Amino acid sequence: MSKEIPYKIYLEEQEMPKEWYNVRADMKKKPAPLINPGTRQSMSVQDLEPVFCKELCEQELNNDDAFIEIPAEIREFYKMYRPSPLVRAYCLEKALGTPAHIYYKFEGNNTSGSHKLNSAIAQAYYAKKQGLKGVTTETGAGQWGTALSMACSYFDLDCQVYMVKCSYEQKPFRREVMRTYGAKVTPSPSMETEIGRKMNADFPGTTGSLGCAISEAVEAATKQEGYRYVLGSVLNQVLLHQSVIGLETKTALDKYGIKPDMIIGCAGGGSNLGGLISPFVGEKLRGEADYQIIAVEPASCPSLTRGSYVYDFCDTGRVCPLAKMYTLGSSFIPSANHAGGLRYHGMSPVISELYDQGLIEARSVEQTAVFEAAQKFARVEGILPAPESSHAIRVAIDEALKCKETGEAKTIVFGLTGTGYFDMYAYGAYNDGTMSDYIPTDEEIAASLAMVPQA
Amino acid sequence: MSKEIPYKIYLEEQEMPKEWYNVRADMKKKPAPLINPGTRQSMSVQDLEPVFCKELCEQELNNDDAFIEIPAEIREFYKMYRPSPLVRAYCLEKALGTPAHIYYKFEGNNTSGSHKLNSAIAQAYYAKKQGLKGVTTETGAGQWGTALSMACSYFDLDCQVYMVKCSYEQKPFRREVMRTYGAKVTPSPSMETEIGRKMNADFPGTTGSLGCAISEAVEAATKQEGYRYVLGSVLNQVLLHQSVIGLETKTALDKYGIKPDMIIGCAGGGSNLGGLISPFVGEKLRGEADYQIIAVEPASCPSLTRGSYVYDFCDTGRVCPLAKMYTLGSSFIPSANHAGGLRYHGMSPVISELYDQGLIEARSVEQTAVFEAAQKFARVEGILPAPESSHAIRVAIDEALKCKETGEAKTIVFGLTGTGYFDMYAYGAYNDGTMSDYIPTDEEIAASLAMVPQA
Repeated sequence: MSKEIPYKIYLEEQEMPKEWYNVRADMKKKPAPLINPGTRQSMSVQDLEPVFCKELCEQELNNDDAFIEIPAEIREFYKMYRPSPLVRAYCLEKALGTPAHIYYKFEGNNTSGSHKLNSAIAQAYYAKKQGLKGVTTETGAGQWGTALSMACSYFDLDCQVYMVKCSYEQKPFRREVMRTYGAKVTPSPSMETEIGRKMNADFPGTTGSLGCAISEAVEAATKQEGYRYVLGSVLNQVLLHQSVIGLETKTALDKYGIKPDMIIGCAGGGSNLGGLISPFVGEKLRGEADYQIIAVEPASCPSLTRGSYVYDFCDTGRVCPLAKMYTLGSSFIPSANHAGGLRYHGMSPVISELYDQGLIEARSVEQTAVFEAAQKFARVEGILPAPESSHAIRVAIDEALKCKETGEAKTIVFGLTGTGYFDMYAYGAYNDGTMSDYIPTDEEIAASLAMVPQA
Repeated sequence: MSKEIPYKIYLEEQEMPKEWYNVRADMKKKPAPLINPGTRQSMSVQDLEPVFCKELCEQELNNDDAFIEIPAEIREFYKMYRPSPLVRAYCLEKALGTPAHIYYKFEGNNTSGSHKLNSAIAQAYYAKKQGLKGVTTETGAGQWGTALSMACSYFDLDCQVYMVKCSYEQKPFRREVMRTYGAKVTPSPSMETEIGRKMNADFPGTTGSLGCAISEAVEAATKQEGYRYVLGSVLNQVLLHQSVIGLETKTALDKYGIKPDMIIGCAGGGSNLGGLISPFVGEKLRGEADYQIIAVEPASCPSLTRGSYVYDFCDTGRVCPLAKMYTLGSSFIPSANHAGGLRYHGMSPVISELYDQGLIEARSVEQTAVFEAAQKFARVEGILPAPESSHAIRVAIDEALKCKETGEAKTIVFGLTGTGYFDMYAYGAYNDGTMSDYIPTDEEIAASLAMVPQA
């Protein structure tokens, strides 16, 4: 390497991407389309339009255009908190004593605390452009809800967030951040929707679920004039917006002539992983380069490593279309002891198809091992990582330690999606030694898969 | 301006300061020395050494050297989270409709959430170099304790934090961040020190005070072999380390040929303000340039605007030396309704002397006006500011609005010291409309000033 590599590589503003990259365009075998559960027909723009903004529907179904222009207004917003740094983990390398070169793309330096803002601002922009009054969504842990609140505040859109009731009560800080950005945050199930009232009547005292919150948000969007529903992961459009992560990463690496051997990302619904790896997978698809790509998921919610690749509902409430994806079954709910996000029963159709084609591999890791990696990383790299991101840290450390054994100086790049400031209950459990692991049994997974609708 | 100014100006690693700047060297009339309350003699290095690290004692008393080399180990650590960005507040300017150009130096992009890490790492380094086992300190809200935990973890030093009991109980998240970095966090008053046991016996059920926590930390440092006490503000050494903020700011401004008209910083003990303004005050002192410099303090704890410039104890427990400073009296305690930091009864001797010489001015602002500014800023600039930092935002916005009236295109630079993720109770009170203001009466201030020791 001729140029000395700094601790942090920041791109100049003019080096930031002007187009998102749509990896579907380079896939010979495309991800399977969303289908209507009633008619079993592929969903068209017209089918999706009552729920999503029109331009987002088009992006959702666009399998042909490799590059889609990032509107100037979104690029202006990106300049407020992007480019995010690509960090050389010199201190971690030293602490591990590894010959590996480790880099991470850090998406946590914005108030939403994660990469979610990259898609939230895009979805809010198209809603505003369409002349809508507002959007609705659900949030569990609150990262997505916070990102959407920030985006809506910027474009002066009404933002209605249905927050799973137990999170609403246990995470009052996340709720206050959203309120500070002007969002209306409603504990779900609420008395404001039909499905909410029904849930409250049928299960008095229920603390809610993500499935129910999705159903409430969709109902609220379709019943209010000038509203649409938005979603922070899984969808093709979200992965498209998140490609800004991978594009910046690639530009930063190219600037210093660095070629990664391995790219690692955590995977829940696939938004971060899909965004980070898109341009690299594109090179693999076009035969221009090869990389080892690893999706890391929690052992307590192992959709890629233990799920089936079938059509399933996107939500537990079964109000959304069917998607073909690696899934544990839409009735699967990870154990309550599982901290943080990455709780989704399925996986983005794009990631699922890439995995099925063997272009990426997957690994599952247990919770206490994840927090052990998180603590080690925090202590030497000075960033307290989100539990989600720490799944990628765990595997990056494992791979770097393998290099120590073999003496190989591999170049490892991983996605550090966010910070853990709102996850201190989980860190506290780890600090106290009361955190435990849970791995679902084969019988549990078989039982929820048995409820997947037949093809 | 020939070069287009980006949203964020990042320095290159090689542009980062290699020396701290000691503004005392350029002051003709120096800040008054610390004195021993018993003998009334100036404190020497020998007097200070039982409590502080030797090299830090020398920095504390060094009024002569304008530049002091930043050791390579500290510069390496700085590279992990610095340079911090100097941000052009394009979005805020647009929202205000002001012709002013607004910049802020953002110190919140590290896990401690504030500028405190700049001095914590320096103090930990000198402790390690001296061969110490560990350090002790107190923390109220927890920013300083978190920064010190991170620094000690990096240098493998034991870190003992006495955390005011009510904060320990009300801010469990801050406590867990410190524990994640390996610190021992003890609620104060504790049963581990003489003064703690006495306080618990005399006031059963007390939830503690900063004054008592300082006394416990000093006692713990002096009674353990190989320990010293460290402090996060007020002291000359702290302002020296924090000059890295101002030096980076000046380099970034110079790079684009920007000359500020006005520099604004919040002021509690003076660590951030002193660091930000040092190089600019140096130019004023040397007659090379002129700037309007404004210290902003809370109306509920107005040491500069309503205090007296006299010798007073640095702590409520009266175990520390006397310092000449603007003070409300060491027995002054701000109203319980005051959120966030900036609760200190006095002001750094350097800042006090600069203020007395008329080189800087001071303004006090009320709490609800501060949170109004914080919310406005968060919504347009995408960063949720700490309550402390928001004092500076309030005055920056006020000045920008004055420019709107007069049509002047002034260049305003302010210090954004940190993020407010751990201050959501206060934001919640603002969101709920239950936040109130409190201004101490003249009688209250006179009463606490009456207890200041006579010269």
